[in-house]
Amino acid sequence: MSDKKLVYYFGKNATEGDASMKNLLGGKGANLCEMTNLGVPVPPGFTLATEVCKSYYDNNRTYTDDIKKQVDENLAKLEKEMGKTLGDPNDPLLVSIRSGAAVSMPGMMDTVLNLGLTTEAVEGIAKNTGNPRFAWDSYRRFIQMYGDVVSGCEHHDFEVALESVKKEKGVEFDTDLDADDLKEVVQRYLAVYKKTTGKDFPQNPKEQLWAAIDAVFGSWNNERAIKYREINKIADLIGTAVNVQSMVYGNYGDTSGTGVCFSRDPSTGENYFYGEYLMNAQGEDVVAGIRTPLKLSTLEDQNPAIYKELVDIKDKLEGHYKDMQDLEFTIQEGKLYLLQTRNGKRTGNAAVNIAVDLVNEGMRTKEEALIMVSPDQLDQLLHPMIDPAYEKDLVSIAKGLNASPGAAAGTIVFTAEAAEIAKAKGEKVILVRKETSPEDIGGMNAAEGILTATGGMTSHAAVVARGMGRPCVAGCKAVVISVSDKTATIDGKIYKEGDSLTINGTDGNVYSGTAKLIVPELSGNLNTFLGWADEVRLGARRKGIKDGFGVRTNADLPEDARKAREFGAEGIGLCRTEHMFFEGEKLEAFRVMIVSDTVEERKEALKAILKLQITDFEGIFEAMDGLPVTVRLLDPPLHEFVPHTDDEINSLAKKMGMDAKALKIRLEGLSEQNPMLGHRGCRLGITYPEIYDMQVEAIMTAAATMTKKGIKVFPEIMIPLVGIVSELKVLRENAQAVIDKVLKNTGSKVEYMIGTMIEIPRAALTADEVAKYADFFSFGTNDLTQMTFGYSRDDVGGFVPEYINKKVLKDDPFQVLDQDGVGQLVNMGVAKGRQTKADLKTSICGEHGGEPSSIDFCYRAGLNVVSCSPYRVPIARLAAAHAVINNR
Amino acid sequence: MSDKKLVYYFGKNATEGDASMKNLLGGKGANLCEMTNLGVPVPPGFTLATEVCKSYYDNNRTYTDDIKKQVDENLAKLEKEMGKTLGDPNDPLLVSIRSGAAVSMPGMMDTVLNLGLTTEAVEGIAKNTGNPRFAWDSYRRFIQMYGDVVSGCEHHDFEVALESVKKEKGVEFDTDLDADDLKEVVQRYLAVYKKTTGKDFPQNPKEQLWAAIDAVFGSWNNERAIKYREINKIADLIGTAVNVQSMVYGNYGDTSGTGVCFSRDPSTGENYFYGEYLMNAQGEDVVAGIRTPLKLSTLEDQNPAIYKELVDIKDKLEGHYKDMQDLEFTIQEGKLYLLQTRNGKRTGNAAVNIAVDLVNEGMRTKEEALIMVSPDQLDQLLHPMIDPAYEKDLVSIAKGLNASPGAAAGTIVFTAEAAEIAKAKGEKVILVRKETSPEDIGGMNAAEGILTATGGMTSHAAVVARGMGRPCVAGCKAVVISVSDKTATIDGKIYKEGDSLTINGTDGNVYSGTAKLIVPELSGNLNTFLGWADEVRLGARRKGIKDGFGVRTNADLPEDARKAREFGAEGIGLCRTEHMFFEGEKLEAFRVMIVSDTVEERKEALKAILKLQITDFEGIFEAMDGLPVTVRLLDPPLHEFVPHTDDEINSLAKKMGMDAKALKIRLEGLSEQNPMLGHRGCRLGITYPEIYDMQVEAIMTAAATMTKKGIKVFPEIMIPLVGIVSELKVLRENAQAVIDKVLKNTGSKVEYMIGTMIEIPRAALTADEVAKYADFFSFGTNDLTQMTFGYSRDDVGGFVPEYINKKVLKDDPFQVLDQDGVGQLVNMGVAKGRQTKADLKTSICGEHGGEPSSIDFCYRAGLNVVSCSPYRVPIARLAAAHAVINNR
Repeated sequence: MSDKKLVYYFGKNATEGDASMKNLLGGKGANLCEMTNLGVPVPPGFTLATEVCKSYYDNNRTYTDDIKKQVDENLAKLEKEMGKTLGDPNDPLLVSIRSGAAVSMPGMMDTVLNLGLTTEAVEGIAKNTGNPRFAWDSYRRFIQMYGDVVSGCEHHDFEVALESVKKEKGVEFDTDLDADDLKEVVQRYLAVYKKTTGKDFPQNPKEQLWAAIDAVFGSWNNERAIKYREINKIADLIGTAVNVQSMVYGNYGDTSGTGVCFSRDPSTGENYFYGEYLMNAQGEDVVAGIRTPLKLSTLEDQNPAIYKELVDIKDKLEGHYKDMQDLEFTIQEGKLYLLQTRNGKRTGNAAVNIAVDLVNEGMRTKEEALIMVSPDQLDQLLHPMIDPAYEKDLVSIAKGLNASPGAAAGTIVFTAEAAEIAKAKGEKVILVRKETSPEDIGGMNAAEGILTATGGMTSHAAVVARGMGRPCVAGCKAVVISVSDKTATIDGKIYKEGDSLTINGTDGNVYSGTAKLIVPELSGNLNTFLGWADEVRLGARRKGIKDGFGVRTNADLPEDARKAREFGAEGIGLCRTEHMFFEGEKLEAFRVMIVSDTVEERKEALKAILKLQITDFEGIFEAMDGLPVTVRLLDPPLHEFVPHTDDEINSLAKKMGMDAKALKIRLEGLSEQNPMLGHRGCRLGITYPEIYDMQVEAIMTAAATMTKKGIKVFPEIMIPLVGIVSELKVLRENAQAVIDKVLKNTGSKVEYMIGTMIEIPRAALTADEVAKYADFFSFGTNDLTQMTFGYSRDDVGGFVPEYINKKVLKDDPFQVLDQDGVGQLVNMGVAKGRQTKADLKTSICGEHGGEPSSIDFCYRAGLNVVSCSPYRVPIARLAAAHAVINNR
Repeated sequence: MSDKKLVYYFGKNATEGDASMKNLLGGKGANLCEMTNLGVPVPPGFTLATEVCKSYYDNNRTYTDDIKKQVDENLAKLEKEMGKTLGDPNDPLLVSIRSGAAVSMPGMMDTVLNLGLTTEAVEGIAKNTGNPRFAWDSYRRFIQMYGDVVSGCEHHDFEVALESVKKEKGVEFDTDLDADDLKEVVQRYLAVYKKTTGKDFPQNPKEQLWAAIDAVFGSWNNERAIKYREINKIADLIGTAVNVQSMVYGNYGDTSGTGVCFSRDPSTGENYFYGEYLMNAQGEDVVAGIRTPLKLSTLEDQNPAIYKELVDIKDKLEGHYKDMQDLEFTIQEGKLYLLQTRNGKRTGNAAVNIAVDLVNEGMRTKEEALIMVSPDQLDQLLHPMIDPAYEKDLVSIAKGLNASPGAAAGTIVFTAEAAEIAKAKGEKVILVRKETSPEDIGGMNAAEGILTATGGMTSHAAVVARGMGRPCVAGCKAVVISVSDKTATIDGKIYKEGDSLTINGTDGNVYSGTAKLIVPELSGNLNTFLGWADEVRLGARRKGIKDGFGVRTNADLPEDARKAREFGAEGIGLCRTEHMFFEGEKLEAFRVMIVSDTVEERKEALKAILKLQITDFEGIFEAMDGLPVTVRLLDPPLHEFVPHTDDEINSLAKKMGMDAKALKIRLEGLSEQNPMLGHRGCRLGITYPEIYDMQVEAIMTAAATMTKKGIKVFPEIMIPLVGIVSELKVLRENAQAVIDKVLKNTGSKVEYMIGTMIEIPRAALTADEVAKYADFFSFGTNDLTQMTFGYSRDDVGGFVPEYINKKVLKDDPFQVLDQDGVGQLVNMGVAKGRQTKADLKTSICGEHGGEPSSIDFCYRAGLNVVSCSPYRVPIARLAAAHAVINNR
């Protein structure tokens, strides 16, 4: 057996741990040591290290002799310091047994207080303290807690027993029961215990102790603790520690009490001492909700000395930990004890405010402050939300995927057209669809929010909605839509056009009716804070990379571009041009183009689109005056442009003077079995060179016009879906010819670049070749993930959720970049690209560009820039700063 | 200017080249040198090297001074040797100007004979030789050839002029024209020349010479030469050489003549001297078809001395080149000259027979003989073909893709069912479909051949047909099928069920009616030859790899397995199990399974399939007694099993006691936008573990049963579409549990392995992890190519042909493995896999496993085995031997 130290003491002159030992002692244990070291009054005790938990499970839920020995030694030390002995019938040592992992998991694991009491000892304490009420109150608490936690008794049965005595005595509060009443309660509790377990309540305190330690280690793997770790992505912990601590009693009488407090307001971050307490109570009473806890200000009034002592300790601890503290304290007969301190959980708003205040107060450096706020906390600040006061009364009628954050309320429409018409009338609508398609883009923009019955987190609806900042609940299977009847059946009720709905894209809930929404404001502190993030990321210098770490946005429309710029985007990293083809007039012209027989017919059809595209680009260049704009040439499959309904086909046939039947046959030839792997991206550029020529002409004509107006334009033409270097070679040459022509004809000078997406695995594998013809690479990690995994992001709903459930996958790879697989291709693409061009600009424009762990990867991979949807720009700015700091 | 030697002389005491200099001098030039060196009578001359051709094009179709100088010097040398001068009015030197690239391109480029004649010189020659008929005959030939080749005159115009004289003179053959008649022909030719070009026929022989050289270099890039190089995949040649050679005259009179001959029969390989000749003629007369050439045996009778000399030379050259020679000779006044020798083109059959004979005759080693036959030549020997005697009279009514080689004839059916019914009646049918689907498999097997209107070289129809050895013409756009009318409209004519068709899957032609087919036999020589190939490939030892280079087959049915075994397969590398689900009873059971709500319902539905699967595997194991069988668990998307028609849905609903409408909604949820990237392969194994459990149970139960019957069974269970190591970990554990259960229950011992496909890029990237749970890797390069390129093989028809046309791609990556991109992933997969398991067995089972250049790659990549469709096994055996030899 090992001689490794596994149990750590804290107390007078003998504290064996400190705050740095969280992994070993858990957060609570480490902080109890630290507080003891600081001279804060803490009842002494000892901590069974997290390694004991691992050993417990490794040894089939038993303890090694070594562990038992170390516990015995520490118990003896504690008995010596306290001058009391566990199991002494007259004046026994009582202890609490508490869990405490390295990461706080509040309320998930078990606790037992007052351990060491027996039917004999309770009489001894009553006599010895002269406070029989306290003795019996402690015993009844212990039986209930131990019964519940250790022996599987029902909490409810104890409640019934307690209530029966209170009723018989005609009292309202527990505190109204006297010693005899509580003695009666104890008798009834002991009966409950016997009835449930078939055994008498254990009268051997050593047996109690080990059973309680067992229970706490056991609670590490209870269902809610496992779930909590899953939800909060807590992995790699070996287990919980167990703290055995001598009891202090808030239930000793009216000069005793217990409370919890925060050194600053956890909801707003405001710097005032915030907390609640109860006199003559133990910890569980504060949260149980039977008696209403008092505010700390009352304590200041009623016991200014104790209050001052508490404030001093609070200041000491906050100053020591340099963060907002969440404290637990107990007052026993007018003497204050601290039972816990930890960094307090807080809202996103509070996190930013506290971080900025701590810097202003000189407690933290800017970089330390940046690390104190997680990027995801910012997300809360950037979207409308349901008024919390109102939300608790809402009943969710369905739950889908939280596809795009924020809440939206309005009346139902079932078509994109209806949404646009309603918007024009000033109405607020929710667009409800089975799924959306590129043709719906106008309606999606017009709607307050989008609800779809099918599709995953990266379905069309989800991606577009996030890009637009529209709240979206996607893949909500409980919604059954009948397009013909214009109804949606949800939870058994039929909703018609005009009925009201509220959706919460942050958590996926759907509610009937129109909820009150609130729009959080971007405070001055947030701007200050993000400014610090920018200093860090723009000042970063990586080997061989001249610039810092940039953040751009994916934006297709001038209004989105402007929004992103407000949020701090340093340019557009991805301007998709497909939506420009899906609007009425242009779509029809494009359809004529794809079914035309000759190049001349096609060019003629494209002329109509050219003019409109020029206007599109002018708007975007104007919004991005002075900043670079990466424009991706047409990407989606031809398949998506093919008209499907007979009406559309007839209309097109008429326009073209063609037989509808013949047209239908030709269109069939254009439909594909796997459009995602079909005739799209630069493949269209090769087979229909006229399309890209027209787009390049539109970009450069707009650039020339804007330049003449004094606007600074930096277009970057991006060719999508390249897999073979010769695709890029040919298309670059074509583009160059058009650019030369436009610049010559307009007599303009425009700084431009021509680059490519790296989104086909083969492009990454042959990036040294591809780089010969690319001024920049932008990693399209959506498609790269699709191809590398062989997943269609439209179809992963069938198995990816189950994969995550069964832990085959840790995360949805469309949300969190897969560093092990896709990441290899990104690294390879960057390395091979820079073999050919040492200062090749590289960026990412997939959905991952706004996800913090992926941003960290991008920084390590040596990308110059990340690009994400407008509403994620602030998050990306912070995540980028974190990446710089964490990878120093 | 360079002083590089660019013109090479051949003649007495001054031959400057040899046979090894083909790249520089072209095949013809190098062999003229070689023959001269060997003492074979060759008219002297000189060769402008292929580099001159490159220089000609690089310098905008002009020659450097250096080149001009070298030509002048060589011409002077030639004049000196011949004692005649170009342009001498009395006794001029006449020369031929012939093309000759490093690779033979017969008939593709141009030739000019009798160059140097002028209206003045012709009189001189007539006088000097005393043979005016010869002189005028040569002149008229020269004018026609020069006019045609150099000056763009119409061949037809000269023919008309010639015929007019013959008609006026009342003669049938050219040889019946006397000197005066030919003089008249010359006058009329000169008029044709003047009329077409507007100029007089050039009378300056130097001018003629350079114009003819121009024309020959120019013909390097004529349309048919470019096309020929494309078809025969001749790349990387810098150009043609030009041979300027002193003329000898087969048209000198009745003791003169010209002919072509082969040292062995190019059609059968038989070792007898085979050829044709004409007296009093020049080369073009032999092929023109006006006079019927004589067999060489006639020469033996009529001029035994010349014949003997020719035989001696033939023997000398064959012995020297150690290969069958294709010779051109001319007899001038009883004296024999050789004008060309080259290795003769031959049929596949002849190639094998000649190779075997040359070994038996001691002329070649076995390895040299193996290299003499290209793997593709074998393909001809393995499939039925249209009787060549018959084929020339057939008129193709449509042409599609040559999707699966061989010819087939029969009556038309439009459904798989009809094919099966007809087959049962003993009728031969051609299955004509828009496209085929897995449900058609029975009908495809029953049909003689398959014709589809859509789909590419790797469409379902093509892949399955190749696997079955059924001839198939796919993607034949000229075929318009009306399923409802049961008609196919081809080339304006309507074909009904019962009408006859013949298809040639080797060249893609479709013919009306039933053509006569012949089935080539596998001769003893072929077996001997392939035995040598096996010695080489099985004896190969690569670093770190114990075994040789194995060849297995992809076979799903016992009859295919038997066929492949006959063809030399050493096991099954891929036994697909999907077809086992698509047959009537099993399909319905499977459909019940996928829409069932509970695991129990699913297991119940699978029970029905289990029994039938056991029978399937028993048949395969029996056919492969003693050899390993790799069985791939279910792979295709759930999507493919979903019933589409209302009839099918109603039938399923009835069977399940479900409402048809409700069923339809549920089925809609299973349909996918990109099924290739959807819920398929091991993803089904994870989400419906019952399916793979059932399959593993069937495999192992069949293995146990067969083992008890004394059959040696080596099952290898292969899990498809793994992209994440945990997929394989989970599924391997599941499989292991089932295997243990079956072996325990049956009390059997069976040697088995569990491995995986590497077909998802991510699996290759993380192969070190994946190898932990795999006993073997099989590279599924079809899917790997799909994902690496981002191409759906069902949809590449929209752009890949154009990519190849525009040279964006060299080959269709589904036919020829892309070594630059996909190959990197294969190399990575092998290397990383063997990092984890040094002796990991690796193989390939994509379509590429039967393609020679891909097999060469697989050998270099260190794969242990290639696996291909049964009819390609012999090809793979030879290609594998080539790989071993070529990579020594």
